[in-house]
Amino acid sequence: LNLPALAYLYTGLDLLGTFVFATSGAISGVRHRVDLFGVLVLSFVAATSGGILRDVLMGATPPAAINDWRYLAVSALAGVVTFYRCATIANLRGTLLIFDAAGLGLYCVAGTTKALSAGLSPLAAVLLGMLTGIGGGIVRDVLVGEVPAVFRAETKLYAVAAIAGSTLVVIGAKLGWPAMQTTLGGALLCFGLRYAAIRRGWELPVAEEPA
Amino acid sequence: LNLPALAYLYTGLDLLGTFVFATSGAISGVRHRVDLFGVLVLSFVAATSGGILRDVLMGATPPAAINDWRYLAVSALAGVVTFYRCATIANLRGTLLIFDAAGLGLYCVAGTTKALSAGLSPLAAVLLGMLTGIGGGIVRDVLVGEVPAVFRAETKLYAVAAIAGSTLVVIGAKLGWPAMQTTLGGALLCFGLRYAAIRRGWELPVAEEPA
Amino acid sequence: LNLPALAYLYTGLDLLGTFVFATSGAISGVRHRVDLFGVLVLSFVAATSGGILRDVLMGATPPAAINDWRYLAVSALAGVVTFYRCATIANLRGTLLIFDAAGLGLYCVAGTTKALSAGLSPLAAVLLGMLTGIGGGIVRDVLVGEVPAVFRAETKLYAVAAIAGSTLVVIGAKLGWPAMQTTLGGALLCFGLRYAAIRRGWELPVAEEPA
Repeated sequence: LNLPALAYLYTGLDLLGTFVFATSGAISGVRHRVDLFGVLVLSFVAATSGGILRDVLMGATPPAAINDWRYLAVSALAGVVTFYRCATIANLRGTLLIFDAAGLGLYCVAGTTKALSAGLSPLAAVLLGMLTGIGGGIVRDVLVGEVPAVFRAETKLYAVAAIAGSTLVVIGAKLGWPAMQTTLGGALLCFGLRYAAIRRGWELPVAEEPA
Repeated sequence: LNLPALAYLYTGLDLLGTFVFATSGAISGVRHRVDLFGVLVLSFVAATSGGILRDVLMGATPPAAINDWRYLAVSALAGVVTFYRCATIANLRGTLLIFDAAGLGLYCVAGTTKALSAGLSPLAAVLLGMLTGIGGGIVRDVLVGEVPAVFRAETKLYAVAAIAGSTLVVIGAKLGWPAMQTTLGGALLCFGLRYAAIRRGWELPVAEEPA
Repeated sequence: LNLPALAYLYTGLDLLGTFVFATSGAISGVRHRVDLFGVLVLSFVAATSGGILRDVLMGATPPAAINDWRYLAVSALAGVVTFYRCATIANLRGTLLIFDAAGLGLYCVAGTTKALSAGLSPLAAVLLGMLTGIGGGIVRDVLVGEVPAVFRAETKLYAVAAIAGSTLVVIGAKLGWPAMQTTLGGALLCFGLRYAAIRRGWELPVAEEPA
């Protein structure tokens, strides 16, 4: 693989992740009976607000997601398709869950790498990497008045997978591992952990309610 | 009209928009049984958080709305009046809706113009112009746990009107139209579209729920 | 008291405030049946998002709270203790309320001082000081779909106390009072007002609902 091919591959995966995250926002919008504009906003928000929050917290303004028409175009496409074919999209839920896990891996390593490149501390890089992966879903759920899915046990190690991937990238950067392998390793660790958690039903505990 | 007179006119309209947007926050607060502080926060938030979000996303910090006492004073006035005379304000709903449409037109062209002046891309300028107009209402509704009104069909082309006004300003700037006429045209397009949508009941579609 | 001792004292109080604020997030998480990750996020958010919002609005990015591991460590400790001993923590509610009032005093003067040091206007310094104190609770409540407690009369002069403390710090700075005494006075005013409001049941009014 040469470098331009890798760049195309990365961009393609990034936009695929955008599409899949956006469908989760669009499905939520259709369920909450919002209009077409609401569905498009929830699509865009689910796909991009993790990265937007990261960029705002880093001071990297304006965020890439509001300056690059491709994110808006791809998430709008996901929104329109889901709006008119929601039953079809809902039937693909199992497949989308796999792509969503891949998107999570990609987003968390991309966020971590961006934070490290800007000279942020290892802790901030892990937190912002995780936020890049889970922030879109949090904003999507808050906008429709739901407790974020990522806080619920039945969602199964979503954030833990993002933290694991981000942490591996930070460790690799500190130990001087080759960047490409570390990035790939972080994304695969996140994806693998999330996939295994879905398959095997791994969950975090929920506290017993106080008397 | 000379320039100082125009500047006064603009400031007057801006503060009138602030007042009207603030009453929408105050009414929501009274409905949700929050205390006087809650009503004042919701008034301020409804009037200013569109602009605050725009400024944060642009990196224009601190946002104008927290540095200029007039926005706080005018929105606090709207909050106090609504708090003690909520039935009167609620009876003015029809009139307020017209002023709200005018405020929307003003806010969206002001936001677009500020983004263009800071050198942001046309896409970002449209998105931030729209956000300036609709962001206050979104934050107001999220703070009381409601799905934002701007996502509901029965609100009738609120965001679409803001996008139309912002887009006209961006097109005019690209084509070198005179700034004042373009700005006025964008505000009037937004106002007119919103007004017509209310009068004629134009709505965006809502998806059929999936099986 | 010499200066290093004061610095240690300040840091100790700051981390104690972080712990107490974090328990409020953890208790909310346990009540809403979120998993361990959700409890940890709500702990961190309740303790730090007032300061994070302040820093983002000031342009002081990245915010201190995501760069300094101690805030994460202390709020995670509060989260874990509450997760496994929620009944015990809930029984300490009366004691925690006192510490929370102290934390509120500390946060609001710290936020005001930071804003003044960065050259912001007196108005912005009061608003950001108040936001430092109350922002964490607002984000905590919005994340679980509740109207913020600080907007409810039964919470009893929470924000008013923060505004009073912040305002005293701004007045002292304008009049050239000694910084240490002014800061201490602002924190004590906030604490005292909040404590008296709890003891005596002082509340802000709630509007009569419109017909």
